[in-house]
Amino acid sequence: MDNLTADQQFDQLKLTLPPPPTPLVVYKPFLQVGNFVYVSGHGTVKEDRSLIIGKVGIDLDAEGAKLAAQQVGLAILATLKANLGSLNKIKRVIKVLGMVNAVPEFERHPFVINGCSELFAKVWGPDKGVGVRSAVGMGSLPNNMPVEIEAMFEIE
Amino acid sequence: MDNLTADQQFDQLKLTLPPPPTPLVVYKPFLQVGNFVYVSGHGTVKEDRSLIIGKVGIDLDAEGAKLAAQQVGLAILATLKANLGSLNKIKRVIKVLGMVNAVPEFERHPFVINGCSELFAKVWGPDKGVGVRSAVGMGSLPNNMPVEIEAMFEIE
Amino acid sequence: MDNLTADQQFDQLKLTLPPPPTPLVVYKPFLQVGNFVYVSGHGTVKEDRSLIIGKVGIDLDAEGAKLAAQQVGLAILATLKANLGSLNKIKRVIKVLGMVNAVPEFERHPFVINGCSELFAKVWGPDKGVGVRSAVGMGSLPNNMPVEIEAMFEIE
Repeated sequence: MDNLTADQQFDQLKLTLPPPPTPLVVYKPFLQVGNFVYVSGHGTVKEDRSLIIGKVGIDLDAEGAKLAAQQVGLAILATLKANLGSLNKIKRVIKVLGMVNAVPEFERHPFVINGCSELFAKVWGPDKGVGVRSAVGMGSLPNNMPVEIEAMFEIE
Repeated sequence: MDNLTADQQFDQLKLTLPPPPTPLVVYKPFLQVGNFVYVSGHGTVKEDRSLIIGKVGIDLDAEGAKLAAQQVGLAILATLKANLGSLNKIKRVIKVLGMVNAVPEFERHPFVINGCSELFAKVWGPDKGVGVRSAVGMGSLPNNMPVEIEAMFEIE
Repeated sequence: MDNLTADQQFDQLKLTLPPPPTPLVVYKPFLQVGNFVYVSGHGTVKEDRSLIIGKVGIDLDAEGAKLAAQQVGLAILATLKANLGSLNKIKRVIKVLGMVNAVPEFERHPFVINGCSELFAKVWGPDKGVGVRSAVGMGSLPNNMPVEIEAMFEIE
């Protein structure tokens, strides 16, 4: 990883963070408890605050869904940066739950969620940026988004 | 929150707790590890131990499902009270996973799970009673219940 | 439990562990953070590395799915043994998320996931081997596996 910091690694990717989610009355996008950071289920928010929409297997194929999962990963990075000030504060990725809104016969959830996992591995490197994971298929998701991901991190 | 305790806040809501679930052979409804409390996925148990049943989008609409999610929240409160003696022992809500048994085209999971989240916010207040959350759609749930929720708390 | 160790209890079951999953680029099957151990969603891997495949309610009934859940439990034991050297290192089961790939009308998820939970209870005993749990129905799972389970443990 060339000894670059996570923030520097992200800058090299030439990707743009969407706006972080506004905290709502009934849940927080981000919570730190001791040296653990929890983030809520994040969605496919784009730079203009619109969402990538559609069911995988009908409206999106696996490649399109993988891009949607990368967008969810960017939304999680935006939340971390807004709350911690820097991606460098993350000591490691602990856990990712990747949820794909797919037709009942869909089988490529790991490929889809790699869109987020590969982003995290690029930002924090092949050890610290990689945690445990489940990549699974939901019956439905809010606003008919194709992907929702929640995650847990360790901080310094 | 008027400086009332969580138990006092709950009393003011004039809601009734259902009986807490009986521990079964293969899982515990409640587990404390250090200063973390984990509760199993809870269902829509009513005072008479019967369940609210049905798939959201067929048997229940979003409003009915929100009431079902509040009932799941009450079942979680019953488990906490039975195991901790008092809701005052909870330092904060960390994480809620709200699972809705809905038709594939359902889109209003956050609205449904607010039935539980708003209850927790009333009991423990707008900071301590609010944690991170995912609100998502399942393909099916045990006994065809409309909502199941698992949660994690911090205790003093 | 006759004061046998977890490894000895497992030996008495006369069951065979499948090969542990090979770590991939984008997720780890196992991660230890402090005294917590997290395992990724595991699948129905058999001794010959082939998978038990099929949707519950179409290709498998509840009994067949329970056997599949036991196989997932064996895969998790294989991961723990490969990473910790011995099942005796586990202090307790904290949390199991049991995910069943079922038709929308399926209702017996707890019965299915008992295939894993009963295995854990035999290995680590009726207290330490039993944690909190959610047993729920997914819309789809990777490779059309009938069951996927993720879990969290405490170690000494």
